Parts: sequence; structure tokens; C-alpha cells
Amino acid sequence: MSNLDKVLDRIDQNLDQSLDRLFELLRIKSISTDPEYKGDCREAAEWMARELTAIGIPSEVRDTTGHPMVVGHRVADGKPGPHVLFYGHYDVQPVDPIELWNADPFDPQIVTRKDGSKMIVARGANDDKGQLMTFVEAVRAWVEETGDVPINISVLLEGEEESGSPSLQPFLDANKEELSKDLALVCDTSMWDKDTPAISVMLRGLVGEEITLKGPSKDLHSGMYGGAARNPLHVLSDMVAGLRDENGSITLPGFYDDVPELPEDVKEMWQNLGFSTEEFLGGIGLKDLGGEKDRSGLEQIWARPTCEVNGLWGGYTGAGFKTVIPAEAHAKVSFRLVGDQDPEKIREAFRSYLKSKTPADFELELHPHGGDRALRMDFDAPALAKGRAALSAEWDKPAALVGCGGSIPIVGSFKRTLDMDSLLIGFGLDEDQIHSPNEKYELKSFHKGIRSWARVLEELAK
Amino acid sequence: MSNLDKVLDRIDQNLDQSLDRLFELLRIKSISTDPEYKGDCREAAEWMARELTAIGIPSEVRDTTGHPMVVGHRVADGKPGPHVLFYGHYDVQPVDPIELWNADPFDPQIVTRKDGSKMIVARGANDDKGQLMTFVEAVRAWVEETGDVPINISVLLEGEEESGSPSLQPFLDANKEELSKDLALVCDTSMWDKDTPAISVMLRGLVGEEITLKGPSKDLHSGMYGGAARNPLHVLSDMVAGLRDENGSITLPGFYDDVPELPEDVKEMWQNLGFSTEEFLGGIGLKDLGGEKDRSGLEQIWARPTCEVNGLWGGYTGAGFKTVIPAEAHAKVSFRLVGDQDPEKIREAFRSYLKSKTPADFELELHPHGGDRALRMDFDAPALAKGRAALSAEWDKPAALVGCGGSIPIVGSFKRTLDMDSLLIGFGLDEDQIHSPNEKYELKSFHKGIRSWARVLEELAK
Repeated sequence: MSNLDKVLDRIDQNLDQSLDRLFELLRIKSISTDPEYKGDCREAAEWMARELTAIGIPSEVRDTTGHPMVVGHRVADGKPGPHVLFYGHYDVQPVDPIELWNADPFDPQIVTRKDGSKMIVARGANDDKGQLMTFVEAVRAWVEETGDVPINISVLLEGEEESGSPSLQPFLDANKEELSKDLALVCDTSMWDKDTPAISVMLRGLVGEEITLKGPSKDLHSGMYGGAARNPLHVLSDMVAGLRDENGSITLPGFYDDVPELPEDVKEMWQNLGFSTEEFLGGIGLKDLGGEKDRSGLEQIWARPTCEVNGLWGGYTGAGFKTVIPAEAHAKVSFRLVGDQDPEKIREAFRSYLKSKTPADFELELHPHGGDRALRMDFDAPALAKGRAALSAEWDKPAALVGCGGSIPIVGSFKRTLDMDSLLIGFGLDEDQIHSPNEKYELKSFHKGIRSWARVLEELAK
Repeated sequence: MSNLDKVLDRIDQNLDQSLDRLFELLRIKSISTDPEYKGDCREAAEWMARELTAIGIPSEVRDTTGHPMVVGHRVADGKPGPHVLFYGHYDVQPVDPIELWNADPFDPQIVTRKDGSKMIVARGANDDKGQLMTFVEAVRAWVEETGDVPINISVLLEGEEESGSPSLQPFLDANKEELSKDLALVCDTSMWDKDTPAISVMLRGLVGEEITLKGPSKDLHSGMYGGAARNPLHVLSDMVAGLRDENGSITLPGFYDDVPELPEDVKEMWQNLGFSTEEFLGGIGLKDLGGEKDRSGLEQIWARPTCEVNGLWGGYTGAGFKTVIPAEAHAKVSFRLVGDQDPEKIREAFRSYLKSKTPADFELELHPHGGDRALRMDFDAPALAKGRAALSAEWDKPAALVGCGGSIPIVGSFKRTLDMDSLLIGFGLDEDQIHSPNEKYELKSFHKGIRSWARVLEELAK
């Protein structure tokens, strides 16, 4: 029996204990965007450092001006393969609307379906606690079974991924030498479908802006002032509505200047993935594609930029009616970027547009959010081939090379600051409701995810 | 010396006693919306019934399911002129934020300005205790001086005007015959300015709709679905933005069908009122008129219909950013109506518009709010001419015929249920801070208000 087979056996036998540990982590309410949970974020960081140290990756909690980082290293001379830096995040999204959860988001449950399949339900079950623990448990199995791991491993876990990662860049800058390894392993992405593993080779970028539009100096009675006083909610609606034309294209001048067409071979691979718009949209209660009219569904989510209003509010939002003209209106708007789109250029185009639409007697306040370019992995990189081989062996199916509609800012930071490529392997499913009520992670994803990483660690050592 | 002159003299001589009585009433904490003050509301009703009875209008407190009504009649055969029903309300608004008051809201004060002018400061000083007592004191002066009043008088005072008047309509329905008189006198409006009396002859109507737009079956991650999944906030913004064209006109088909042009003489009167758009908008921090481009400021708030978004919300509205595509978007939209616009016809036009803009795979939920026609006093009504004559005599200035941008529900109820027109005469000023801290009423308003009603009573008898 090979070392790998023994490690895989051990993973199978210890699955319950692996789950127990994951549940411990899921119970910690590490919502990074809400200051009320600051202590919980630190608790999650400390928990991670203890666990990593326990499996032979001596780790420590490192303070930042925000939530702390967890950093650890297990290095020995003369090991083959790349020295990898594994990245994950221990923070989670807020849980609102809480009333739509079937159970307490921080009381993880195993739910068994009629067909016998099981899922782990909790905030963070997938994003990213469930995912990052697949790697941790794989390392544990290697160390417990063989006394070592095949390659040198460093770990970096952050606690602000769901709130814009404000401390990450300064931390990378300050610890460049310590963190610059040969390759980053990132576990924060999805499989193609429940049977087909995937490596994400294209990531959209992101740039966001929070808008406060101030009109009258106070809320007004719409009877007394309605008609004469301009309504900030009308103006903001105009701004949002004007961002798209009738074909679903974004109207900002120059928006598409740096958006490349897809290479023919990638286009073909995507066509053969058997993507069904009907199923994709059917799963979220929709029927019709909402983006650019002449683009396929996969292109719309992976290879085309977009603009989304993530939040909009103003005026009276309680029960009943209050005939008020609000003094202010607010929106959070973000753009997903592709190709060579420059976040700051897009931000400037957006700000110019908003300014041009702001009435002379109104005030416009803007607060930037995010600012990450899109990323593409080199299709010929050796690590990519090794990752595909390991995944294909575990899942008995060739791993798909896919795009990813969301940005994973860390990948850009690793590239920019540490000149390090990232191998993006994850075991989530699109249906996992990350960021939504009843977030879940397939038990199969967790189990075979651990096994997959065990194989990747060996494959990279070859 | 005429009877009227003697009555006016008496009013001048007894002003201190009139004030004492008003202060007694102002000390009663009759906040109708707060159950804690239920007993105070009854106390105010009883105080009013006693006072009215004492001046020769035998009155009683009538129970409702909410706060009681006060009803009284002073009727004699063979009197000239119309039998009037005077309406006012003895309840007041809450006093929050209490810390912004310079003194106890229920300990009325006379505050003297540097220029010697005086004001009465207390919750209800204007709205509506100060205003209604101008009428009561006028009747008292007539009765005490001449032993009678020139015309037949009934009185209806309610105690729920500041909390939606839930008991009013059932009470009118149940006492239709008793309360249907020739003309209602309502004292709950403002003067044009501190020197110019006014009669409100146009009240805008109101129709509202609460909109829930349902798109995806759950909140989505904008990275995963952005582009492909239509965003309810985009669609709702489109709906709202499309309601107005570049000239500020409402785009609903047929919206202006029943909107009459202002008679030339009224237009001219308004032009001569010296309305300053700059001052009006300057008071609320704005500079430019927001409504229909070819309409004056007074037309925009009094004589033109409008559409206002009173509330709009969806997606993530907390601190920080959440890159979500929300499952739902919500809005509360209302229209102020004028002329003969039919609330239900406008509602239908709005609903059709919303339906036409709803994507096939979205769901639209609508909840109606309000539905009151605009009201206009007949410009040729004899009572209007008499009211103007009385006011012009007292204030040495022609009384302005003005519009009122907001609805006054009682006027609609009187018209609808009792088929009775209302003469709206009030002595408040826009600066009186009704509903706000440090509510006040000019002593001049109180004094000359009493004198004005004394004149109106005689004029109506002619």
C-alpha cells in the first residue's frame, strides 16, 4: 500500500473527527464586516493557529489594524516540488435576512436528503471555513500517517475577506520575504458540477463605490414640497437606470475598451461543458439571461464585465406609509471586471458619470470599495497540469478549466506583491448559497476535498 | 357703536383671560398616538365640552372605539345665513425629541422677541388647540356681548387627527343627519404670511402604492450570477426613472387628462403673492425647482400633480459592502392629485406601467395606499366671498386664495359623507414648527384670529 493510499484511508476513517473540528470552527461568529463580532473574529484566528500548530504547522496570530492574520510554516531542507503558501479566510458574511434561515446559522447541522446524500448547513460551511478545512485535514492525515508532508508548506489565513481585506495589502507588503513562496494554493472556488472538479483559471476583478446623494437639508412632507423639491430617490434611480442600455450593455464611456474577446480554444471548451442557461437560471427562479444580449450565459458570468446595484435605500421603509421626500438616498454599486480593465479607470468613469447626473444644488459623497483587476492563469503552467492530474484521479473525471465570475482579490495581491501564481482548487457548488441564508457544503465536497488535497500534495512533489 | 365693534372691543379687553383658557387647554397632554396619554385625551375632550357648554353651545363627550369626540349645537329658529359645523382637533403630536425643546412642551410660555412681538410656545400652541380656540373665543365674545351668535353653530372636535383619525369615518357615518350642516368651518391651516390672511381653496389628493418586485428566488452572489441574473434593484430603478421625462412631467398615459389649467384670475393672484422660489427652496437647502419645467413654484406645489418615491430599498444596506444581487426590491410611491384626477384611474395607469416593465420571470406585488381626490372650493361660492370680506377687513389686506399641497382628510370626508363644503381659514404660519420642537403660535395670530372669526360669523349672517 502506497503512502498516499494509507493517507486516503486515514481520511476516510477519521471523517467524523474532521467534521467535529469543522463544526467547532463554524460555531464561531466571525462576521468581519460587523464591528460587534470583532472578538469572535479573533477567537476564530486563535482557533486556527492552535489547530495548525497541532498538526505540525507552527502558527501564530498576527495583529493588524483590523482582524488578525494567521501565519504558519512547516519547512524542511531538501524537499522536492514547490514550496506552497496555502491561503484561506476564517471570516464569514453577515447572516441577514436571519428569518430565512431554517436553523441558527452558527449551529452547524448535517442535513440528510431523501437520496441519502448529506450536506453541512451553516454560515461559512462553504465560504470559506469548510473549504479551508479540506486542506488542513489533508495535511493532518499526511502528518499523522507518515510523520510528514511531501512538500514545504506555509499557511496564510485572513479574517477580512468578506469585508474588503483592508489589512491584507499592508500585511503582504510588510512580510514580503516571509510569504513569497513558489506557488499559492487557494481553496475558495467551486467545482464545475457535483461530479466534475474544476480549476479556476480566469477571475473577474471588482471595483465598487458607495454613493450618498444629499438633497434637501431635512426630510420633507411631500404634500408641502412635492413637485418643487427634487427627490434624491428619483435622482438616484435615474443614475442607476442610465447605467445600462436596452441591450444590457454598460453605458459608461470607454467601459469596454480593455475587454478582450475569448480565445477560440477556450470558447470551444466552454461550449462543450454542457452549460444549460435554463438550469443555471432555473436554480434561482429565473428564466431569461439579464446581461448583454449577444453573449452566452457562461460568457456573461465569466468573461464579460457587469454592473450591479448591491444595495439601494432611502426614505421611509417601515410598515405603512409616510409621505416623505427623503433628504438623502444611498446606493452600493459594484462592477465586475475582465481582461485588462483598470479598476481605477472604471471608477473614474463611474464617478464622472455620477457627477454629471448630480443636480447643482445636491451633494454627492463617494466612498471607494475594492479595486482589483481581473486575473488569468497561464494555461501551460506545470502546477496546473499536476493539479488537474490529482483532481482527475480523485473524481474519475477530467478537471474542467473554468472562469470565475467573482473576484478573489488575494490572487491579484499574490501576483502583484509577491510575484506568485495561484492554483485555485475548490469544492463548492454553485447551489451552496454562499452569502445567502442556509449556506451549505456537500459532505461529499468536504470528504473528497480532503482526499483531493492529499493527492495534490503528493502530485506537486513529483 | 355696532354690535360687531362692541364684540371686537370685548375681544381686545379680554385677551388675557382668553389666553388663560388656552393655557389651561395646552397644559393637558393629549398626545393621541401614545396609549400612555389616553386619560389626558379624555381630559381634553371633557375640558372642551365644559367650555363650549359654558359659552352657550351645549356639548357632550361622545365615546368612540378610540379617543372621544366632542359634539355641540347652538341652534335657534329663524336665524339668517348658513348653519355651520365648526371642526377642530384637541389632540396633539408627540413631543420627541424632547431635548430640543427650550421649555416643557406642556408648560405654555409667552416669549417676547426683541422687536416686541410675542409668541405662544407649547405643543399644540398652533396645531390645533391655539387655532380652534380662536373660534371658541369669538363665539364667547358674541354671546357675552350680545347674548347670542349671528348664525346657527354646531361643533365637532376630534381627538385622533394626529394619529390617522380611525374613528372619524365611522362617527360621521353613524351621525350623518346630526352633522350634515350647510357649511363646515375648519381652522387648521396657515396664513399666506404674517400680514396676509388666506383661505385654502385647493387641496391636492393622494394615491399611493407599495411595490414589491421579486426576481431571483434568493439573494445571489454578484460574482457568481452578475451579468446573467437580472437585478430587481436595476429593474425597480428603471421603473422609477421612467416615470418622469426630461421636463419633469409624469409619463403615465392619461396622467394629465383631468388636470385643469388654473383660471387666469387665480394665476394672476398667485403671481402677485410675491412668492419667492429662492426663499422657499432656500429654507430646505435647495436652489432649483424640481418639477415640471414650465410651471411656477406655487403651481408645482398647489396646482400640479406630482409623483414621489417616499421610500425605496433592497439589497445590503448595512455598513461595509456585500456584493449581493438581492432577491427583492421595494418601493413606496405616491402621487399628489389635482383637479378631477381619479385616484383609481391613476392607480390603474401606474399599475399597468409597472406590469409592462416587469420582466417575464419576475413577480410584482402591489399594495394600495390612500385614494383621495383633490378638492376645490367653488370660486363663486357666496361663503367664500363672505369669508374673504371678513378677513380682508380685519387684516387690512385682501385675503389670498391659496392652495395646499397636502391633503386634509377631514375636508374630503365632509364632502364625501356629509356632502358639505368646507371653508378653510387658519392663522398659523409656515414657521410655526407644528409637529416639531418649540411649536409656537403668534400672539397676533391668536388675537386677530379671534377677531377674524367674530367678523366671519357676522358676515355669514348677511
